Amino acid sequence: MFKKIMNADHARELFLKALAPLTGYELLPIEESDGRIAAEEIIAGMDVPHYRRAAMDGFAVRASDTLGAGGNSPVMLKLGKNVEKGVCGRVHTGSPVPEGADAVVMLEDTVFHDSMVEIFTQIHPFKNVGEIGEDVQKGETVIEEGHRLRPCDIAVLASLGIENVKVAKKPRVAIIPTGEELVPRRKRTLRDGEVYETNGLMADLYIRKWGGITRLHDIVTDDPAKIKEAITSALDTDLIIISGGTSVGKRDYVPAVVGSMGELLVHGVGISPGKPSAIGMINGKPVVCMPGYPVAGIVALYWFARPALWKIGRVPDEPEKIVRAILAEKITSRTGYMTFTRVRLETPHAGSYRAIPLATSGAGILSSVSKADGFVIISENVEGRSAGEEVEVVLID
Amino acid sequence: MFKKIMNADHARELFLKALAPLTGYELLPIEESDGRIAAEEIIAGMDVPHYRRAAMDGFAVRASDTLGAGGNSPVMLKLGKNVEKGVCGRVHTGSPVPEGADAVVMLEDTVFHDSMVEIFTQIHPFKNVGEIGEDVQKGETVIEEGHRLRPCDIAVLASLGIENVKVAKKPRVAIIPTGEELVPRRKRTLRDGEVYETNGLMADLYIRKWGGITRLHDIVTDDPAKIKEAITSALDTDLIIISGGTSVGKRDYVPAVVGSMGELLVHGVGISPGKPSAIGMINGKPVVCMPGYPVAGIVALYWFARPALWKIGRVPDEPEKIVRAILAEKITSRTGYMTFTRVRLETPHAGSYRAIPLATSGAGILSSVSKADGFVIISENVEGRSAGEEVEVVLID
Repeated sequence: MFKKIMNADHARELFLKALAPLTGYELLPIEESDGRIAAEEIIAGMDVPHYRRAAMDGFAVRASDTLGAGGNSPVMLKLGKNVEKGVCGRVHTGSPVPEGADAVVMLEDTVFHDSMVEIFTQIHPFKNVGEIGEDVQKGETVIEEGHRLRPCDIAVLASLGIENVKVAKKPRVAIIPTGEELVPRRKRTLRDGEVYETNGLMADLYIRKWGGITRLHDIVTDDPAKIKEAITSALDTDLIIISGGTSVGKRDYVPAVVGSMGELLVHGVGISPGKPSAIGMINGKPVVCMPGYPVAGIVALYWFARPALWKIGRVPDEPEKIVRAILAEKITSRTGYMTFTRVRLETPHAGSYRAIPLATSGAGILSSVSKADGFVIISENVEGRSAGEEVEVVLID
Repeated sequence: MFKKIMNADHARELFLKALAPLTGYELLPIEESDGRIAAEEIIAGMDVPHYRRAAMDGFAVRASDTLGAGGNSPVMLKLGKNVEKGVCGRVHTGSPVPEGADAVVMLEDTVFHDSMVEIFTQIHPFKNVGEIGEDVQKGETVIEEGHRLRPCDIAVLASLGIENVKVAKKPRVAIIPTGEELVPRRKRTLRDGEVYETNGLMADLYIRKWGGITRLHDIVTDDPAKIKEAITSALDTDLIIISGGTSVGKRDYVPAVVGSMGELLVHGVGISPGKPSAIGMINGKPVVCMPGYPVAGIVALYWFARPALWKIGRVPDEPEKIVRAILAEKITSRTGYMTFTRVRLETPHAGSYRAIPLATSGAGILSSVSKADGFVIISENVEGRSAGEEVEVVLID
């Protein structure tokens, strides 16, 4: 029996409050910085453009020279090198606007013969001229500290001649699969009572996907001394994830070992599946204990490990990848538990979704996650959702 | 002037219809297959579990032996090696259920002393027993062809002892930046009329992010022969992206060169920004011509290059990453053009979003994308959206 089941939001807040973002950074060539977090504000060291640039192919003019020009009453200008009263200059998109000119007439509004240009429209000053600093001004903040860099941001850095960028370090994450029933995946045959290790692999892949650097420990058997040894060896990382041995059975030593080495903040959480999750801190290092049941494990990864990783890694909160769908059948949930119901999505019409709840049995059925596209998350104080209701489906990464 | 502006959806359909998915595959260790596309159906070669497994810590029994047991009237069983009438066996979660037993009584419903076990509850057959194949049955399809593999899918493969998986090849994409004003990024100083090359870099990063293997060509000047040479050198790839030179100005040679080498399917599209986009096919190889103006360029990447990459790479359609937000100010759009309006998101309250349109000038202002979190896409037949309306914001990758 769990002594106390802690509310899911409360447990997460308690955990996140105990975490401090990493302070280090690394310097990367901008080409390799996609998806990384800017570790400092980036200030433009130059104007973009750094010269007055033509926004159109056409002729640079003094706008005042076009006064009165119209479709039937063109103004005639000389084509010259230096633009001055009565003289215009050829420009194309992106080329510098000559000194003396203050506007550009589009090619389409002109007729050119010999060294003379007929202008068929009256334009105002600054028309079709990109001023210095129009895109980015020298001294301007182009990237805020903590921003996640996207290709379009990196293009801005490139436009400023910036070659390297300071980004937040990726958190290092140790993953420790435990369980005497587990067998390494390269072993060919299984005896009764044995299963291939999968939770550690799954955690490893999710953490890498979410931005961490992983170190996957060998399988540890259900032995407190061995578990302690494995945790000790992982204390040089920034986050420790232990899979299995988190419940209240005879062989569930993990929470007690974590408590003996540091502080067990949470054991027993109001999430379903995922109740036997536990959270601790050892020497300032956060520890997520994910249940050995794989579906419960993935919920613990989503609920605790991902936000912890992101807080440590200075990754800004991002909206979930959500799809709105009509629920095909009612789903029931466990009052007092935040319930993660697996659903499959169908698209009967382009752009419209139906969510089909998977007739899932227990938290032990890994294939039920693999068959699911996402979760419908039902809060503690709700008993379920009805068929036909619109629900938000959180897509599984 | 563009001869004809093609409707955005029509242009995209025309393009995608001309593309054939790549047929090759590569064999990868499952650990490296996250995000990749299964190139074949994957069938379970074994049952999971492959033995009857206990779902709880407790005692394996013959359910019939618990008949009449209750809180005040326990049934007494002997603890033994072989379960038979009157004899039960110790099990823990995941361990094999001994032959002869057909159910497991939870530890919490028992009291154990010496070699005798008191059972305080009556249970039915199969209770707390995971049958063979309960998770995955031998012969079952666990992964459909064309499915994008996620860590939870890979965990299922691992549970089946599968070590390698056939995945679709990543498309190879050549990116050719053109423009005589462009300067390679390592060059330190810019003269008037010069800008650093950024569109090619941006396309390169987006294509890599979206699952392609890129080859970024050196900058090509505005010279039809040089452009042709660059395209020719790229015909060994699966998709060619050319940036710049796509409009109808004097130096815009790209569409004509593409047309001369193959077929120009589209030139001039009803998207804003992005009108000067062009699409062609050369020797069966798709060519996306993205406008040199960076904001128009990114729209062309999203609208044409990404779906083309995904069709070639056999990537299933995925919902956009969308956030619903209340529009803070009205936005106007260009009738007849599918308009991509850049917006910044604010979160006045947790979970609620406000979309602030960016007071953007032209398609040439790269920093306006960098300042934006996403696009509000307004269809051709709508004039705009009002302040206070709920809109869908497509987040920029």
